[in-house]
Amino acid sequence: MRAMVMTAYGAPEVLQFREMPEPVLRDDDVLIEVHATAMNPIDYKVRAKPYGGPRDLPCILGFDVSGVIRALGRNARHLKVGDSVFASPSLARNGADAELVAVDWRTVAHTPRTLDHVNAAALPLAVLTAWESLHKRAGIHPGQTVLIHAGAGGVGHLAVQLAKLHGCRVITTAGMPETIDLCRELGADVVINHTKEDFVKRVSEETATAGCPVVFDTVGGEVFDRSLECVGLNGRIVTIVYNESAKIVPLLFRKNATLHCEFMGVPTVYGVNPESQGEILRTVAELVDAGRLAPHVGKVMELKDLPQAHREQETGRTIGKTVVRVKG
Amino acid sequence: MRAMVMTAYGAPEVLQFREMPEPVLRDDDVLIEVHATAMNPIDYKVRAKPYGGPRDLPCILGFDVSGVIRALGRNARHLKVGDSVFASPSLARNGADAELVAVDWRTVAHTPRTLDHVNAAALPLAVLTAWESLHKRAGIHPGQTVLIHAGAGGVGHLAVQLAKLHGCRVITTAGMPETIDLCRELGADVVINHTKEDFVKRVSEETATAGCPVVFDTVGGEVFDRSLECVGLNGRIVTIVYNESAKIVPLLFRKNATLHCEFMGVPTVYGVNPESQGEILRTVAELVDAGRLAPHVGKVMELKDLPQAHREQETGRTIGKTVVRVKG
Repeated sequence: MRAMVMTAYGAPEVLQFREMPEPVLRDDDVLIEVHATAMNPIDYKVRAKPYGGPRDLPCILGFDVSGVIRALGRNARHLKVGDSVFASPSLARNGADAELVAVDWRTVAHTPRTLDHVNAAALPLAVLTAWESLHKRAGIHPGQTVLIHAGAGGVGHLAVQLAKLHGCRVITTAGMPETIDLCRELGADVVINHTKEDFVKRVSEETATAGCPVVFDTVGGEVFDRSLECVGLNGRIVTIVYNESAKIVPLLFRKNATLHCEFMGVPTVYGVNPESQGEILRTVAELVDAGRLAPHVGKVMELKDLPQAHREQETGRTIGKTVVRVKG
Repeated sequence: MRAMVMTAYGAPEVLQFREMPEPVLRDDDVLIEVHATAMNPIDYKVRAKPYGGPRDLPCILGFDVSGVIRALGRNARHLKVGDSVFASPSLARNGADAELVAVDWRTVAHTPRTLDHVNAAALPLAVLTAWESLHKRAGIHPGQTVLIHAGAGGVGHLAVQLAKLHGCRVITTAGMPETIDLCRELGADVVINHTKEDFVKRVSEETATAGCPVVFDTVGGEVFDRSLECVGLNGRIVTIVYNESAKIVPLLFRKNATLHCEFMGVPTVYGVNPESQGEILRTVAELVDAGRLAPHVGKVMELKDLPQAHREQETGRTIGKTVVRVKG
């Protein structure tokens, strides 16, 4: 099969078109003909250097897929050849920057019938991250004020919608006119232009100095450190970005607060409760088909332009999701 | 009233006997004649330097009490003058190193009928810390393996018992023959002599390399950092000791794990859900009277010897609780 292959660690040019053997199906796998995949920060992090352990090279990145089932492993009886499905392929195996990808059937759901593959591919990794962060980790409740960073980002734009669907008041951050507009369209109650305003101060004002019961950091670095100040008494902060902050306990301790490190790869990398991700994606598909949740595709690119897609993702200035069309 | 008063920040000698005005009762208070109080690390931390903000001096420390109600605030109708009660006085007000202390009635419970005041005073702060850490934060389940550091310590010896009562398998650490014996008597399944054995390596062996779903750090410092390595996939670590570790996210991130900072002072210092602590102490009293939970009083001292009690607590080598007798 044809694939964009990571031939070495390094700059985006290490991604090259190659002929690769088809994936070997495991008993729990379905073989999916990839119609579209999507970009995530994990792609450029894994490409640049060994991240969370080295990989056997050459390998294939791309951890979103929407496509059509072409073959079933022995245990994948509940699905049929020809079904349209979407999923987030395991971060520890070859991904979907290719004509075919093998995915654990338990992590797969039927593609929402109201979305084409390009739009459906925008969802899996980002929506699983947002759902697990808000529902499984932070445990958001209706009426709570939730701070979600980068509300127009790949994870952020879905998190804003999920929190609003759940009846939360959403404070979010953005820095460009288009992203500020998008956050408003998604229903955010307060949009802070972080290039013009100190978000810590504004969150304090918006919460009568109480801080937020839930903070969701999708940015990391200094934003993470400063977000610790936005957490209220008994509050929770979820981060999806690696950091080496020494301020966590100093800023959370007297607030009796909690830090959740969210890594959506655990079910697929370690095989712990993989069916949980299929369940989430089925619920997501229902919400999408009911018109209550929608991915925002900021840009569609072709598989041959994957190096450029990596470059753009790495700027941190992409809006919503960048989808990579693989077929058609 | 007579009290051992903290006259300045500094060495234990800043604690001096003084005549002090009786506490002014607030509407939610009960006035308790102190029969006994107990030592906690917070006492010497607050005495040594401003910790969590400066205090008005002179002030009174001592954040455990068992004694008899002498007066009721306007809202404290459910209790009676003459009732024997135990509680953890607010960390933000004058404590129980005195003949009288004022305590929010909602945080108070009747002293277990099977304990005298000396033994009852050993419980409140430590058992609230252990209970909140294991049940409210970590959410322990029967069958789980729980690592509890310093299983013979003031908080640890109660945490070991609570975890065993809940059907957990308990791994604990201790470093002296008496403390190792105490941990065994309390029912710990595995007692690691941390002076002779690397606890990280032993925990890995005891859990078939999976690590623990719940780790409770009552020690801090290097023990905290190394405990991060003992947390399993989707696991939780609770700490009750301030730290400035930069290893939290590096060691928890890929495990999708959670850090809970437990500060039992929130309900009384900030007035957030103070009744939760009365509820826990009522349940604790039932467990004690049923013979299923017991404080371990390692030493009883007199109020006049409070400076020495501080010195001993600060060594970190006291066993169970040091109780300070105030009356009788």
